[in-house]
Amino acid sequence: MIVASLLVYYTLMESRAIVLLSGGQDSATCLAIAANEYAHIHCVCFDYGQRHQIEIESSKQLAKLAGATFQCVDLRFMSDLSNSALIHADQPIVEAPGELPSTFVPGRNALFLTVGAMIAHQKQSSVIYTGVCQTDFSGYPDCREAFVASQQATINLAMETDIQIKTPLMHLNKAQTVIKMNKLGRLNWYKETHTCYEGMRPACGKCPACNLRLKGFRDANITDPLEYQSGT
Amino acid sequence: MIVASLLVYYTLMESRAIVLLSGGQDSATCLAIAANEYAHIHCVCFDYGQRHQIEIESSKQLAKLAGATFQCVDLRFMSDLSNSALIHADQPIVEAPGELPSTFVPGRNALFLTVGAMIAHQKQSSVIYTGVCQTDFSGYPDCREAFVASQQATINLAMETDIQIKTPLMHLNKAQTVIKMNKLGRLNWYKETHTCYEGMRPACGKCPACNLRLKGFRDANITDPLEYQSGT
Repeated sequence: MIVASLLVYYTLMESRAIVLLSGGQDSATCLAIAANEYAHIHCVCFDYGQRHQIEIESSKQLAKLAGATFQCVDLRFMSDLSNSALIHADQPIVEAPGELPSTFVPGRNALFLTVGAMIAHQKQSSVIYTGVCQTDFSGYPDCREAFVASQQATINLAMETDIQIKTPLMHLNKAQTVIKMNKLGRLNWYKETHTCYEGMRPACGKCPACNLRLKGFRDANITDPLEYQSGT
Repeated sequence: MIVASLLVYYTLMESRAIVLLSGGQDSATCLAIAANEYAHIHCVCFDYGQRHQIEIESSKQLAKLAGATFQCVDLRFMSDLSNSALIHADQPIVEAPGELPSTFVPGRNALFLTVGAMIAHQKQSSVIYTGVCQTDFSGYPDCREAFVASQQATINLAMETDIQIKTPLMHLNKAQTVIKMNKLGRLNWYKETHTCYEGMRPACGKCPACNLRLKGFRDANITDPLEYQSGT
């Protein structure tokens, strides 16, 4: 009886994955990769008072497309902790070489992964997917592989667990991410994603985020299914 | 001019400490130790929907006694993440040898220290005090020294900082903590602390937490200034 219960427990552990969703292109790709490997997916997005609440709606739609369960965690206390332009609409978005971009919220991924691990523990899941990426690394230290390895060790020491943080996009550039999604047959999911720093829908097609996205699709020779403002 | 600004910045870094307050005896002692070493203290407590909201009031009173600034961070999403008896009043408090106590909230200290580090970064502080203690270690893995060292490395990788997590009570037992507080001349601060698992004020004097506290005072041969129910 105990053996049978343990077997059920470990089978559950093996078949359920947590996916951290931001509503962007990378986390959508992560979701498609996870859905290809795990029978049950639980999506987690964070409300941290971000400039564009539309990201939360995008996350919800993506979870629905994947047939996954979904929860949004209230981390709005973060908006008091940072002057980041990702949160405060009155801050200009500036990117200068050699400096952290003004969209950087210090400690954001550490917080997201810690909360994700607490949810993984509760849901008896041994895997967390996150779309962090060192390749297109825009000066965010908490997107690096060394940080993720340290964060994984820390959460497992904290909870006596054996949770793995999977970062399938870590070494892919934007074009490779798009090609990966195309191979998974989920290109249409990109329609629901949000990338535009200006929060526009259809997307502005002109801000640094839209430009990086569009360049990825051009390099991959694939058409972005997202709607853009006419004239883009 | 730049040198002068840097000097001001580093002087600030050296003189400001963050103290994580739970409103209990250990974090009060931590606060007294920090106040003895740093000119400016910023106290942080967490509202995680704990069983006893009185702990937040205790934290506020302790910060006032120390002449420190104070903030309470809303982490109430935690109450959905755990069946812990520390949060849910309908769960019995059970402690069985070799098992995690039912008051354990998995990942709690990892979350508190991550948020504390984000606040430290914002306040330009390089030190966080926490009252975790391996000696009276009640089966909480996130009170161990190995966890704290890993958490410190992780937050610094995440934010490119050099923040130190100080755990002055790590190797003290309850009696030694009380003696330390007495030497610092802050024994009266204990009047404002909250320990009782039953949430009673005056304290019940009978639950495992009250018992552990009272034993510490007896061993130290010092009278606990806290009010207890008559007959205790």
